[in-house]
Amino acid sequence: MLIEILCTGDEILTGKTVNTNYSHMASRLNEVSLKMHWGTIVGDSREDLREAFEQASKRADIVIVNGGLGPTVDDLSQEIAAEAAGVKLKLNQAWLDRMLTFYERRGRTMPPNNKKQALLPEGAEFIDNPIGTACGFAIDIGNARFFFTPGVPREMKRMLDEQIIPRLLEMSGVKKLTTLKRFHSFGIGESRADQMLNDIETDINKEFVKLGFQAHYPQLETKVVIQAKDKSETEGILQPIIETVRERFGNFIIAEDNATLEGSILAELTRTNSTLATAEMYTSGAISARLNPPVGDPDPVLRSLVSRDLKELSRAVNLTLQEEAISFNTESAEKISTALRTEAASTYALATLLNIDRDKDGIEAGGDIIIGISTLDGSYCRKARILGGHEWVRLGAIELTLDVFRRHLMKLPIDERIDFEKR
Amino acid sequence: MLIEILCTGDEILTGKTVNTNYSHMASRLNEVSLKMHWGTIVGDSREDLREAFEQASKRADIVIVNGGLGPTVDDLSQEIAAEAAGVKLKLNQAWLDRMLTFYERRGRTMPPNNKKQALLPEGAEFIDNPIGTACGFAIDIGNARFFFTPGVPREMKRMLDEQIIPRLLEMSGVKKLTTLKRFHSFGIGESRADQMLNDIETDINKEFVKLGFQAHYPQLETKVVIQAKDKSETEGILQPIIETVRERFGNFIIAEDNATLEGSILAELTRTNSTLATAEMYTSGAISARLNPPVGDPDPVLRSLVSRDLKELSRAVNLTLQEEAISFNTESAEKISTALRTEAASTYALATLLNIDRDKDGIEAGGDIIIGISTLDGSYCRKARILGGHEWVRLGAIELTLDVFRRHLMKLPIDERIDFEKR
Repeated sequence: MLIEILCTGDEILTGKTVNTNYSHMASRLNEVSLKMHWGTIVGDSREDLREAFEQASKRADIVIVNGGLGPTVDDLSQEIAAEAAGVKLKLNQAWLDRMLTFYERRGRTMPPNNKKQALLPEGAEFIDNPIGTACGFAIDIGNARFFFTPGVPREMKRMLDEQIIPRLLEMSGVKKLTTLKRFHSFGIGESRADQMLNDIETDINKEFVKLGFQAHYPQLETKVVIQAKDKSETEGILQPIIETVRERFGNFIIAEDNATLEGSILAELTRTNSTLATAEMYTSGAISARLNPPVGDPDPVLRSLVSRDLKELSRAVNLTLQEEAISFNTESAEKISTALRTEAASTYALATLLNIDRDKDGIEAGGDIIIGISTLDGSYCRKARILGGHEWVRLGAIELTLDVFRRHLMKLPIDERIDFEKR
Repeated sequence: MLIEILCTGDEILTGKTVNTNYSHMASRLNEVSLKMHWGTIVGDSREDLREAFEQASKRADIVIVNGGLGPTVDDLSQEIAAEAAGVKLKLNQAWLDRMLTFYERRGRTMPPNNKKQALLPEGAEFIDNPIGTACGFAIDIGNARFFFTPGVPREMKRMLDEQIIPRLLEMSGVKKLTTLKRFHSFGIGESRADQMLNDIETDINKEFVKLGFQAHYPQLETKVVIQAKDKSETEGILQPIIETVRERFGNFIIAEDNATLEGSILAELTRTNSTLATAEMYTSGAISARLNPPVGDPDPVLRSLVSRDLKELSRAVNLTLQEEAISFNTESAEKISTALRTEAASTYALATLLNIDRDKDGIEAGGDIIIGISTLDGSYCRKARILGGHEWVRLGAIELTLDVFRRHLMKLPIDERIDFEKR
């Protein structure tokens, strides 16, 4: 089954917007063993869209069109789809009603040009968009089945996963079960990880085991894709691989599959009925933003404090010391975290002090990180130096802070060297 | 002159690598008034490359091929180029000598398969790569001139700027200047903005004026692209359009061009030698993270406080009230911001209380926002209800808080209704 992705829109064509929609779609298809064959990018031009639709309809079995479903005059996907399929546009009353209700509930009147979003080619299959006003649809053009998706990333992603991939898997007739196992690690670089696992994908099993890495600094994602005839065969292949990866990556695995580093911290705090307060410097609220449970879930983080200024940070936790006594060292990190724990009456307090090289940026630069953890039984400290530009150091410091706290909660050593660290 | 970019390689086709080479090339061409017409993505497959070359040669005047010039067997660009142009591959002795010297100077022997990189189609124009072993070349295929560039980003970028763009500008003979003007607004939805400006791009001027919108909720970006023969003609066309957009969008314009909402707040605080302290609830540090100047720049934000719990937030600012007196209302927002301003000894304090509907999510849900601003002259308040899912409301609350504070600083009304708001 030959699959083409056709990205539309001047923003993409002219390079204003980096085409992350394409890479997301292609990666997701790849993960479920649907193979990409071709990619096309055209602007908001009737003539070019016509040509692109025609060529794709001859070249591919499946064409996923992205973008051009909005309310404005330069959104042309429905119109050209109808033309290419040789049918008329027809009002989808159910979708128009959904849009009208959507606006009404916001106390607004739907702008008249939004009506355009409910015009679908006659005979098209409606594809739901539960979170936006651009519905999707599918229609045959030439020998290919075209799927039309919105350009808004979160709407496209949801439609792809919930509506399009299941249809494609059914059409492809591949009865094999594809299973994806993901490991998230912090502290192991991509090339070292590749070396550590280079015997997993062997000549013998490479037809049904596929290993891949994706670095999202500071985290590394390791993906294992298994193709097998059923659940039990999958288990048999996957289980020993999972054990190998866990054994080799050890304490550096911060989460698996859809779990996250911050999620496991929040879960552990909730499980043990504990609470946390945080203080941070140049990480500017990012640690607080990560420790952010969904609305309605228990929130063990009592308060968070942010300031770039060490003395201001001390004042904010009512540290009654002489200000001269506060400087960038482990003692201050411990004092601040202890004072914060007292102030907030929390089980734990976590303070991250960050001193970024101010005189340079880029690969010449770096930053010092001091993390203080205050607990009922005493306080702990982790010091590190990360080399790299300001943003690189900042991101590393956020991750290291969360990881050190996870390690403390899980009773793992907080001092294991990470690959991004200078020692 | 119709330009196509043809990206090759399995990494790009399967989405493993985000196609930033494409967006870089297209943006650079756009900046010098060279218009993109088409983009194609194919993998490392002889058949697909052949088809892509043939189609592009019919469709475009200029084709820039990226990737496939490496030493390995899956690098096929020279081979398919020669085939498509109907010529043989021929050793470029000068390039082979350069490569041999390159390796020699590093004290290494050139691996034999690198020789492949010196094989160019007969009659091809050599294009220098001063920083790598993949040289570029140009050759006519059908009616189009094809330029072949390496996939390594820094090599491609340099070759594009130094070698290819000058050739294209000479070929195009177009001496027109392209100018992009951007407006960032908050509070006007995309379709309403489209209606408000629908007379700017008229039949008369649409050859040299192009209007476009890009919604990055909660912000909207409005772009005007002008093509004119020189700077003075550009000014003459653009100035009245800028005035019209400013007049119609009015106070809803939060920044223009590369400026940002948070940047203008930080600049205004710095200019007036003022300081700020912030407190936030479900926005969980995001306001603090936005008000985050580059390392080394003045930082007027003394401290930020985050807690989801209103009573905890009051305790953290040492509000000595009876706890019963704190509830989700404008009075509490004002009390918290005033207490925070006193605690931090700042010029301003900004408190955002957020109450998100807990029992539902998605388009059925919503949230109430109360923003308190404390100043030397008294305190101000803004209340709003935004409908939408938790994340939608959270993002809206962050933007509204920053915008209300910008409006206060700029002496604009803080109470103008925004499109995302229910009244």
